[in-house]
Amino acid sequence: MPVQMQKNAETVKRLIRREAYSNLSKILKKTHPADIAYFYRFFTPQERAKLFSLLQEDIDKTAEVLANMEFIDVAQLLETIQPEKITKILQKMPPDDRVDVIGNLSEEIADAVMQLMKATETAEVEDLLGYDENTAGGIMNTEYLALNEELTTKDAIEVLHRSPDVEMFFYLYVVDDRNHLVGVISLRQLIVKPGNTKLESIMETEVISVHTNTDQEEVAQQVARYNILAIPVVTDDNKLVGVVSVDDTIDVLRDEATEDFLKMAGTGTEEIIEQSVFSSLKVRSPWLLASLAGGLIAANVIHSFESLLEQIILLSAFLPVIIGMGGNVGIQSTTLMVRGLATGRIDIKHIGKVLVKEIKVGFALGLCYGILLSVLALILANVGLLTSDSNTGIPLIGLIVGLGIFSSMFIATTVGTFIPLFFAKLKIDPALASGPFVTTAIDILGVGSYLIIASSLIN
Amino acid sequence: MPVQMQKNAETVKRLIRREAYSNLSKILKKTHPADIAYFYRFFTPQERAKLFSLLQEDIDKTAEVLANMEFIDVAQLLETIQPEKITKILQKMPPDDRVDVIGNLSEEIADAVMQLMKATETAEVEDLLGYDENTAGGIMNTEYLALNEELTTKDAIEVLHRSPDVEMFFYLYVVDDRNHLVGVISLRQLIVKPGNTKLESIMETEVISVHTNTDQEEVAQQVARYNILAIPVVTDDNKLVGVVSVDDTIDVLRDEATEDFLKMAGTGTEEIIEQSVFSSLKVRSPWLLASLAGGLIAANVIHSFESLLEQIILLSAFLPVIIGMGGNVGIQSTTLMVRGLATGRIDIKHIGKVLVKEIKVGFALGLCYGILLSVLALILANVGLLTSDSNTGIPLIGLIVGLGIFSSMFIATTVGTFIPLFFAKLKIDPALASGPFVTTAIDILGVGSYLIIASSLIN
Repeated sequence: MPVQMQKNAETVKRLIRREAYSNLSKILKKTHPADIAYFYRFFTPQERAKLFSLLQEDIDKTAEVLANMEFIDVAQLLETIQPEKITKILQKMPPDDRVDVIGNLSEEIADAVMQLMKATETAEVEDLLGYDENTAGGIMNTEYLALNEELTTKDAIEVLHRSPDVEMFFYLYVVDDRNHLVGVISLRQLIVKPGNTKLESIMETEVISVHTNTDQEEVAQQVARYNILAIPVVTDDNKLVGVVSVDDTIDVLRDEATEDFLKMAGTGTEEIIEQSVFSSLKVRSPWLLASLAGGLIAANVIHSFESLLEQIILLSAFLPVIIGMGGNVGIQSTTLMVRGLATGRIDIKHIGKVLVKEIKVGFALGLCYGILLSVLALILANVGLLTSDSNTGIPLIGLIVGLGIFSSMFIATTVGTFIPLFFAKLKIDPALASGPFVTTAIDILGVGSYLIIASSLIN
Repeated sequence: MPVQMQKNAETVKRLIRREAYSNLSKILKKTHPADIAYFYRFFTPQERAKLFSLLQEDIDKTAEVLANMEFIDVAQLLETIQPEKITKILQKMPPDDRVDVIGNLSEEIADAVMQLMKATETAEVEDLLGYDENTAGGIMNTEYLALNEELTTKDAIEVLHRSPDVEMFFYLYVVDDRNHLVGVISLRQLIVKPGNTKLESIMETEVISVHTNTDQEEVAQQVARYNILAIPVVTDDNKLVGVVSVDDTIDVLRDEATEDFLKMAGTGTEEIIEQSVFSSLKVRSPWLLASLAGGLIAANVIHSFESLLEQIILLSAFLPVIIGMGGNVGIQSTTLMVRGLATGRIDIKHIGKVLVKEIKVGFALGLCYGILLSVLALILANVGLLTSDSNTGIPLIGLIVGLGIFSSMFIATTVGTFIPLFFAKLKIDPALASGPFVTTAIDILGVGSYLIIASSLIN
């Protein structure tokens, strides 16, 4: 954490300990809500409770701080206070955040809060709740300004004067009489054009927009691709219903990247660092079970080659190399695919080329390392570091291990490339396909091919 | 790729094949520069060359398209045309992009271009080249508006009128007579306040800013944390020298996430999907070498327990489970650490707590799976699926494998958590510490502890 924030956090902790609440209030007033939300996470439960009760002196600030926290944490905090108070705080939060917090409250408290909110607001919240939270409809802001195309720039500026509370975007969206999105102008144009200019004469009519059901990741990618600061959200008949701003999409991009990381590692999609040991166990165990099942299958494969291994015990010493090299090269391929698909560098329409290239790379890498390992085995035997007490000589064992590495690595790149692409084709998240599943498949296939090669060359 | 873009791309390809250049020009005129840059990647070299020569009819559009492409690709394209033409196109690009493109040109062409540019512009470019490209100074935009604090809102609006070419941000930065950053106002305030209001009376004086040498990742994190659309860049003595806008930071966040993915998988930091098989080999090989070395050490460890394995050949069948479970649980821990450190969820000042928690999780997971595997071994032996032809009974082997899994998983979580945190403490990128290194260390330690347990329980 930046030095200044670190200092603030320590000051706040000290003042809480000393119960110096008036000083504390002053400090909180001067501290940015995002900073309070940030260092809040490093406080003890007692410190958190104190801080939260002090914060509530200023409802606006409380709302801003909460808007910067994880929704599930916010819900937990709010459940400690009265529904009336919850409602007051929620009413100060942007509608999209408000909805997410309510969605995380216990059903009973959520109902109480919904009843307390004014009928109109509830309708708005219910509207938003109707959209999947991972779509444009779920993350959009419904408090925006839409200007009629017939207005002049002077009229428009007056509308701005009359709407001090509306979140302001860099762009102003222009609609016709039936609220269809017809254009966009920037705040800047409003300033530099003469006052009697009609909006329709200066607006850009090719508006980049998304539908309410567009996936949030696609929304974020469009905002990033076109370098825009906000994107309007429309219904099927092109009626403007909300705006997603760039700062919401940053959170989306970051969360999606984190999710992909965690999925690939097999730790679910939630950040469990701050959760209890028990919840961590619950999230991480199932993925390890897949790995265990795979490992037992591999054990069974090895078990069925037991007489071969009894004959040449040295072969089992190379099992970790076979598994390790296959696993690592396979994860390289899988990672390239998963990330390439996520960032749009790999297009699902053109996967043939990518697959062929990765298979070539796997073949070449397998060949290099297979030869390298065969040669290494020979050298080690020559200097006496490797001995075989069976009838099979080191050269043959070197050849077997070399071929085993080659086949394991070749299989691994092919499987590691194919599985994510195949899942993407089926519209299943490729990040889920990776981690434990790919490595487990590679373990079994790699070990199996190694032992088949060994038994066919020896018997 | 979205359906509409797909259609556009196919139309452009068809028109190029038919050499229908006048239709093509019309289509290109209507297509968003970011879209052209995007589908350009899926074209053949011949199609690319045609497209590029047609594009050049419109220098502005060309500059916009290039600004949406990877700098290295842009440099390759530009090197096919005359330096005079290159200079014309570059002058239409934002200074920060311009600098990155010049940095990717061959030295000879870069020199020619620099000489052709006007003296002032070159000075500006050289200024930027002086900053590390991964810092605020390297990504900032130097064409921005700074308003003197003595101006009124009416004066400020006039300044906007007179500066049609300057990139406009949502915020306007306010400076004193010596260009020190003293405040910020939003375009919106400029519109809604009376015309004779002095800027200094309405400006926000607590401006969030970064230094020229602030790391780009920290810049991006601040923009994301405070939900702002742009952040000013200042020198050590608080003089305003540039602005980083939110769309630049989106690219930073995305690139940093991709880099972390690739580093963890051990495929360097560059995206190599579109590179040749040979360059892929070059990038991926070194990391696999680390894995090979680790595998050979593990082979040596096993080799030294050869007489034990000869005695109970069944023990080697469980090597893949020991390695696999350790590897997977270790990668879970490492991923949680690397991502947590990157997103700021884990603070380097508070790693003790995280480490202790992960060690507890590793202990618990190891215990669960160790017991599970012991029990499974007993069941399998009872139904006749597992047989031991040695003097050692299945119950003892089950106990050994169970203890082996426990120690391998416990070691793996500890190592997988400790190594990234340790690297972060040393200010070495923790993503680099992961992938091959962590798994290799875990392989050796896991196999070693399993065999030590086995030999101490049997002899």
